[in-house]
Amino acid sequence: MTDRSPLRDLFAPPFATRHIGPSDADQARMLEAVGYASVADLIAVAVPGAIRSGEPLELPEAASEEQAIAELRALAARNQAPTSMIGLGYSDTITPAVIRRNLLENPGWYTAYTPYQPEISQGRLEALLNFQTVVADLTGLDVAGASLLDEATAAAEAMTLARRAGRVKSPVFVVDAEALPQTKAVLATRAEPLGIELLEADLTAGLPDGELFGVLVQYPGAGGRLGDFRAVAAEAHARGALVVAAADLLALTLVEAPGTLGADIAVGSSQRFGVPFGFGGPHAAYMAVREGLQRQMPGRLVGVSQDADGHPAHRLALQTREQHIRREKATSNICTAQVLLAVIAGMYAVYHGPDGLRRIAQRTHRHAAVLAAGLREGGVEIVHDEFFDTVLARVPGGAAEIVAAALGKGINVRLADADHVGVSCDEKTTGEHLQAVWEAFGVTGVVLEDVDTSASDALPAGLLRTTGYLDHPVFHSHRSETAMLRYLRKLQDRDIALDRSMIPLGSCTMKLNATTEMEPITWPEFAGVHPYAPAGQVEGYLRLIGDLEGWLAEVTGYDAVSLQPNAGSQGEFAGLLAIRAYHKANGEHERDVCLIPSSAHGTNAASAVMAGMRVVVVACDEDGNVDVPDLVAKIDKHRDRLAAIMVTYPSTHGVYEETITEICDLVHRAGGQVYVDGANLNALVGLAKPGSFGADVSHLNLHKTFCIPHGGGGPGVGPVAVRSHLAAYLPGHPLEDGAEGAVGPVSAAPYGSAGILPISWAYIRMMGAEGLKAATEQAILSANYLARRLAPHYPVLYTGREGLVAHECIVDLRQITKETGVTVDDVAKRLIDYGFHAPTMSFPVAGTLMIEPTESEDLAELDRFVDAMVAIREEIAKVASGRYDRADNPLRGAPHTAACLLADDWKHPYTRAEAAYPLPSLREDKYWSPVRRIDQAYGDRNLVCACPPLEAYED
Amino acid sequence: MTDRSPLRDLFAPPFATRHIGPSDADQARMLEAVGYASVADLIAVAVPGAIRSGEPLELPEAASEEQAIAELRALAARNQAPTSMIGLGYSDTITPAVIRRNLLENPGWYTAYTPYQPEISQGRLEALLNFQTVVADLTGLDVAGASLLDEATAAAEAMTLARRAGRVKSPVFVVDAEALPQTKAVLATRAEPLGIELLEADLTAGLPDGELFGVLVQYPGAGGRLGDFRAVAAEAHARGALVVAAADLLALTLVEAPGTLGADIAVGSSQRFGVPFGFGGPHAAYMAVREGLQRQMPGRLVGVSQDADGHPAHRLALQTREQHIRREKATSNICTAQVLLAVIAGMYAVYHGPDGLRRIAQRTHRHAAVLAAGLREGGVEIVHDEFFDTVLARVPGGAAEIVAAALGKGINVRLADADHVGVSCDEKTTGEHLQAVWEAFGVTGVVLEDVDTSASDALPAGLLRTTGYLDHPVFHSHRSETAMLRYLRKLQDRDIALDRSMIPLGSCTMKLNATTEMEPITWPEFAGVHPYAPAGQVEGYLRLIGDLEGWLAEVTGYDAVSLQPNAGSQGEFAGLLAIRAYHKANGEHERDVCLIPSSAHGTNAASAVMAGMRVVVVACDEDGNVDVPDLVAKIDKHRDRLAAIMVTYPSTHGVYEETITEICDLVHRAGGQVYVDGANLNALVGLAKPGSFGADVSHLNLHKTFCIPHGGGGPGVGPVAVRSHLAAYLPGHPLEDGAEGAVGPVSAAPYGSAGILPISWAYIRMMGAEGLKAATEQAILSANYLARRLAPHYPVLYTGREGLVAHECIVDLRQITKETGVTVDDVAKRLIDYGFHAPTMSFPVAGTLMIEPTESEDLAELDRFVDAMVAIREEIAKVASGRYDRADNPLRGAPHTAACLLADDWKHPYTRAEAAYPLPSLREDKYWSPVRRIDQAYGDRNLVCACPPLEAYED
Repeated sequence: MTDRSPLRDLFAPPFATRHIGPSDADQARMLEAVGYASVADLIAVAVPGAIRSGEPLELPEAASEEQAIAELRALAARNQAPTSMIGLGYSDTITPAVIRRNLLENPGWYTAYTPYQPEISQGRLEALLNFQTVVADLTGLDVAGASLLDEATAAAEAMTLARRAGRVKSPVFVVDAEALPQTKAVLATRAEPLGIELLEADLTAGLPDGELFGVLVQYPGAGGRLGDFRAVAAEAHARGALVVAAADLLALTLVEAPGTLGADIAVGSSQRFGVPFGFGGPHAAYMAVREGLQRQMPGRLVGVSQDADGHPAHRLALQTREQHIRREKATSNICTAQVLLAVIAGMYAVYHGPDGLRRIAQRTHRHAAVLAAGLREGGVEIVHDEFFDTVLARVPGGAAEIVAAALGKGINVRLADADHVGVSCDEKTTGEHLQAVWEAFGVTGVVLEDVDTSASDALPAGLLRTTGYLDHPVFHSHRSETAMLRYLRKLQDRDIALDRSMIPLGSCTMKLNATTEMEPITWPEFAGVHPYAPAGQVEGYLRLIGDLEGWLAEVTGYDAVSLQPNAGSQGEFAGLLAIRAYHKANGEHERDVCLIPSSAHGTNAASAVMAGMRVVVVACDEDGNVDVPDLVAKIDKHRDRLAAIMVTYPSTHGVYEETITEICDLVHRAGGQVYVDGANLNALVGLAKPGSFGADVSHLNLHKTFCIPHGGGGPGVGPVAVRSHLAAYLPGHPLEDGAEGAVGPVSAAPYGSAGILPISWAYIRMMGAEGLKAATEQAILSANYLARRLAPHYPVLYTGREGLVAHECIVDLRQITKETGVTVDDVAKRLIDYGFHAPTMSFPVAGTLMIEPTESEDLAELDRFVDAMVAIREEIAKVASGRYDRADNPLRGAPHTAACLLADDWKHPYTRAEAAYPLPSLREDKYWSPVRRIDQAYGDRNLVCACPPLEAYED
Repeated sequence: MTDRSPLRDLFAPPFATRHIGPSDADQARMLEAVGYASVADLIAVAVPGAIRSGEPLELPEAASEEQAIAELRALAARNQAPTSMIGLGYSDTITPAVIRRNLLENPGWYTAYTPYQPEISQGRLEALLNFQTVVADLTGLDVAGASLLDEATAAAEAMTLARRAGRVKSPVFVVDAEALPQTKAVLATRAEPLGIELLEADLTAGLPDGELFGVLVQYPGAGGRLGDFRAVAAEAHARGALVVAAADLLALTLVEAPGTLGADIAVGSSQRFGVPFGFGGPHAAYMAVREGLQRQMPGRLVGVSQDADGHPAHRLALQTREQHIRREKATSNICTAQVLLAVIAGMYAVYHGPDGLRRIAQRTHRHAAVLAAGLREGGVEIVHDEFFDTVLARVPGGAAEIVAAALGKGINVRLADADHVGVSCDEKTTGEHLQAVWEAFGVTGVVLEDVDTSASDALPAGLLRTTGYLDHPVFHSHRSETAMLRYLRKLQDRDIALDRSMIPLGSCTMKLNATTEMEPITWPEFAGVHPYAPAGQVEGYLRLIGDLEGWLAEVTGYDAVSLQPNAGSQGEFAGLLAIRAYHKANGEHERDVCLIPSSAHGTNAASAVMAGMRVVVVACDEDGNVDVPDLVAKIDKHRDRLAAIMVTYPSTHGVYEETITEICDLVHRAGGQVYVDGANLNALVGLAKPGSFGADVSHLNLHKTFCIPHGGGGPGVGPVAVRSHLAAYLPGHPLEDGAEGAVGPVSAAPYGSAGILPISWAYIRMMGAEGLKAATEQAILSANYLARRLAPHYPVLYTGREGLVAHECIVDLRQITKETGVTVDDVAKRLIDYGFHAPTMSFPVAGTLMIEPTESEDLAELDRFVDAMVAIREEIAKVASGRYDRADNPLRGAPHTAACLLADDWKHPYTRAEAAYPLPSLREDKYWSPVRRIDQAYGDRNLVCACPPLEAYED
């Protein structure tokens, strides 16, 4: 045979060829369009030499998908997931298989973006509204948000909300001694920079004396006690303080709602509503508030509004509260929610309905009651008489031995201290588990059935729930698996996610979330591990985490990485805390000024405020770059108090600023630290390292650059990476005391959202150094290709050397708007008719669209997008020429629903076909928007944030 | 607490409550509508007492979903899946993860029905067209079908095709000595009843002398030899015989196409195109034929036609060949294809493209060449010099030891005989595997790189492929994972499957395919097992199979079950072979008459012919029941030759015939056996057992009653169940000789499509006796509810006692058609506009619709269907009254695409809204048909059965 090839020439193409959209041939065509002979030539001009790394990344050679899966299976096999009865806010739960497969494992759900474009997000917005309804109903409060990051940070948000909203000037916030230990730890981390004084108190003795602006009660407590906090709440209110209840959602199906007992705010976790442990997350925390506090709520809130035809439609409400608009005046730095997990929790309630939830709660409680009775029968002292799911046993000096004995029987229980053992029941608890626990306590001869017959329940009679919940039909209509499956499909079909078309969102890096990266996260060996499982049970996880920390350090040029922050905002906060602690350790307590360019993400400013810093804005020049003279002036002015500068690199304008090394130098010379926001790291990986070109700390967004899917608006993972002098100030363990001067935890779980770290691990493992670099190069080429193709039609703003952009480009519609009245909003909504999610609107500059193609889109899809943008430009031209009416044209009318187009009396001066099929390819494959353009203001004026009655949908 | 409940009252509701659609409250409403006080009352009237079983089924107590999964994990852990290099037509392969998750694990694909309604099946029809194009291109033949059951049965179909189509009257069919052993075995089973004489011959010596009607060559051979069969083909043609090549699709990417070498027919397996082993299946076999033979092909064929607007559209072509129309004159008894697996294989080719496939083939071959060279270097004799992937080593007396040594290194190789070992390479083979095999042969010191440098390839120079393949753009456009994902989503969205709406197909039992049932089949411990793995490696499988056989025997009242038949048609054939063998063993060779009522499925008659029987039709009376006097007459007439009767129970008219026990008696008394077709077993499970009320043998359709999904037209599983006197005549093992008089294998794999048996296992395990009975009762109630609700609008045909039906009902449109011209076709297509798949059309009676709701549809969905049917009836009334034009009305125009409705010039006398939104609920959730009504005849007149060029789709 003539064409004999050696084996090395016959290897399967690397995963990178599947991750990166354009083929070699496509790439050549794109280079030609951009005007460069090779990728190397392009990069040499596009990326400033001063920041370029000379050496390739030191990473393991790229593994194939099969190899990576095999290695992950081996890591998984090194985790053990015994029955967990540890509790502490995390309970085992059964994810209904129909939800796992069709939601958690379905790219139609997990690759969706945050629902900022509500028209193409009606499915997940409805799902979030279900979640909000569950939370509002169960907590007995008026308004619930669309989820927060974890219970501990939600408690911290509630604390600051209470301070903002309250009337009392006192810095004191009282914390229930029975609060979850991780909640206490995170509260401490968050309180200190803001000057809040935490006062821990045994609330069974009533509220401590003195002024306070708020109090947090845990309901039920970490040790299981279920107490009535009505008196504490009344006393707090009498003193002008707000009451926060951290409550267990499942318990609330049986005991009275916090709102009824007097809480102003309720927080907690929805994890036990069908979301796996995942060694700590991601899970959706919740917050609900009473009427009057909703404008103070952090995070996202879904509300009902109406569309252009007057039909009900969902969208994010009260966005003016949020950091992306309010910046340092925002209610919080939170931008990511935990949408995918909140959707699961909401669907769990849809699947079980109120009766099913109540039965699960009753069974859980009954197991706990029987467990306690059996222990008592065996002579074990039970600390609390009234509890929901957790039994605390007093075993003087014997706790460690009992914990070990239980583990010998395959059960993790909680070592509360040397004298106490906690045992928590959950949806999965069985009689066999109770028997095993009894035996671990040395209690023998107890017969389950006998105890069950004789034991009373242990819920306080005065707390039994009298108020109803989940009356809405959605919680009563999808009880069979078939019905549930169809409901999930119906909602999914309403949305645009990455499984339909490119999502060209500037700054959001909507790249491929490969199946091989996603598959391991639902394996039981990763999904089934409690966050506080003993280290010996999680060798696989710890190895994976260690690998990932090391690889991320190599990629970024830093020395140490913490994966604890479970969102970019938390990474920022952790990074700034490290800087703060570093200055303090150096005796420079007065350094509290954080310089932030005017072009920064709003989150930066909000995070700085949370870290106790003062924000000083640095101007940008007309090219969008940091105005160096202004920077010099600001440094001069604040030299003694300069703590840090936060810059995004490449800039939020999508440009590699040439002055970055100079900026770093200027700040360092003034004694400040340099924080580089890693939002745009997809333009750097393999080409340049922030830790090497001058920065001290960065956070990364694993949900951007490292392939964790956006989940429809979360989860995110925001590791913080630092140079060695800051390593001692990375976030601490939530259940362990840190060293003097160390920073406390920023998340409830030691490794944050550990359950999804296999995604980023697999991505790096399969890409290798070459693949990662190639991805970055392609991302830059693709952005420049789009810029070049769009430039004849729309002005491209902010370019760097030789007119090149980095990994995204901004097209400017301001002149068009001025001349024709066609706005960025019109273009964004018209893109829906073409089957696309809009680019980022009006950030960083109002009146513009920022487009980031990422490396994962192939040339055909890029061209399809260009075709749509060019066709829209032609439509705009028709408005300009008068061929289209200024007030009634396909742009202004967009998006068009099929229903509006099929009206018998079509009254518009453009045709139905012009509206629906502006390009012939749409006849073959058309996405139909489920609603017309949504009236945002109407919804904020008429705030409805829970499932509206079905009549609202009647025509 | 007052409402303390013991644990037993707090258990989670059983799985049956999720499987069965209607709630208790719904059931009460349905009973009221049907007019019975309880389910028991209804069943007492509906089901004849004579057949009712008194006792509950003896099955293990129902397990929860969690328990069932845990037990399946334990069974899976008892399988081993070492590296397989056994070969014999089964090669390991990598299922691309994006295909596994978004196709194989996606209910949008796997719950779809056979594409008899082509308008709502365009997605999977396009996918099948891809498959056909792959097969036609690679085999170099003109027309390829949409898949057959396995390679061995495909070879048997080719044999009978050659006999039908050929000019020679000889009964001789020559079989290559190098044919796969299971193919030889299945050919033998199939040849004998038809009087075909098989002549095995070493074709390297040329064609044996004498007359023959056909010859089968294996290309490459079972022992690996790759020979040029041009001379054999030429000689065969010269003698008037047809040439069948059984060819390896992957090899064909490198060596010349069978069509080019002279084959008239090619068959083989597409398993190695991404479909897991599954311990034998399901996999898609293929058949391709040269121009002129296509009307003789068995099984399904997808072709391109056009719709009412002249746009290209896919549909099943040449259906007049098929058994459901041709009955005993059909080309085959095959009705099920292996659609889901054919779609996977086609998508594998889409994903890799011709270059990727060629590289996989080259690597596979290169590994084999290096393996052989290394063995030779170590002094091992290699039998064949020219091969593709399989190396046959001659090791006199040493084979068993080598096989054991290889297994010691984690590799299964083939024990060809005591002196020969076969080793087959595949997509997953690595250098490490070669090293291990060398060591198992005792060959040491061989350095892979050195051998790779020195060894030649082993493909015959004269056979190197010169003809091209897969030039169509679809095989070049979806190379990135993102593009592949979107292609899968796009096709899926075109189809209606169970994840959108009910599929009320009479006789097809489209019930829930629960996720918990589906999840295990893609676990590697089930998916990764070679069909001929040693018994010691498959303990889990064997236990699962044993359980399932036992449970099915209990459910049906038979004594023995074989799971080998991989479709209902194969079960029928196996059952009839058992009857034939039984009569023979009793010396009654002359018994060859098979009585079949006129109402039977066409498959029955086709199977009887295959089993060497003569079909005698028994009349039905006007109620659709067997005409007993005619039966008596036919028995009298054929008494001495009576072999069997085949009846479906309940009848194909959906009625429990009261005379069934009498019929059984009459036949038995005449010395015949009673075959009860299990198609309608969903109306019997838990209520009545065919094996107890008089039948001797049945086949079951696990893809109907026992929850294996229809997969868009396959896989099916058709176990055969018999009473003890027939047990010795169940199908034999394909690689083992049976006893004297025993029946040979009917499938290539000993347990048929073993890989999907966990589905039915899980279903029975989770339903238990009570759940199964409740499901049957609900299925009967639901059918009667529909009949009762529809009766005021459409006449319901064929009812039993008190006007009740069994599990399905037939509505009669003949009078309506006569009066209005509106046909069943119009109603079926109009249902698409309402979002429904049509019921079964014109079976068993032309001009009617047969509706089977199954137990899984909830009341809301049943009512939604009734609403649609009633609304359609009102539309028909408008045609009758003249309010709608007879020739141009919404029924005749259905289905309506969005594009046709948005035409600027709407010329129909009904409105767009009447066409699109005849019910208000459709405005909230609308399925849009991708094409208008398809012209079936046009497609058959202008047969195109491969991907048409893209220009065909241009407007």
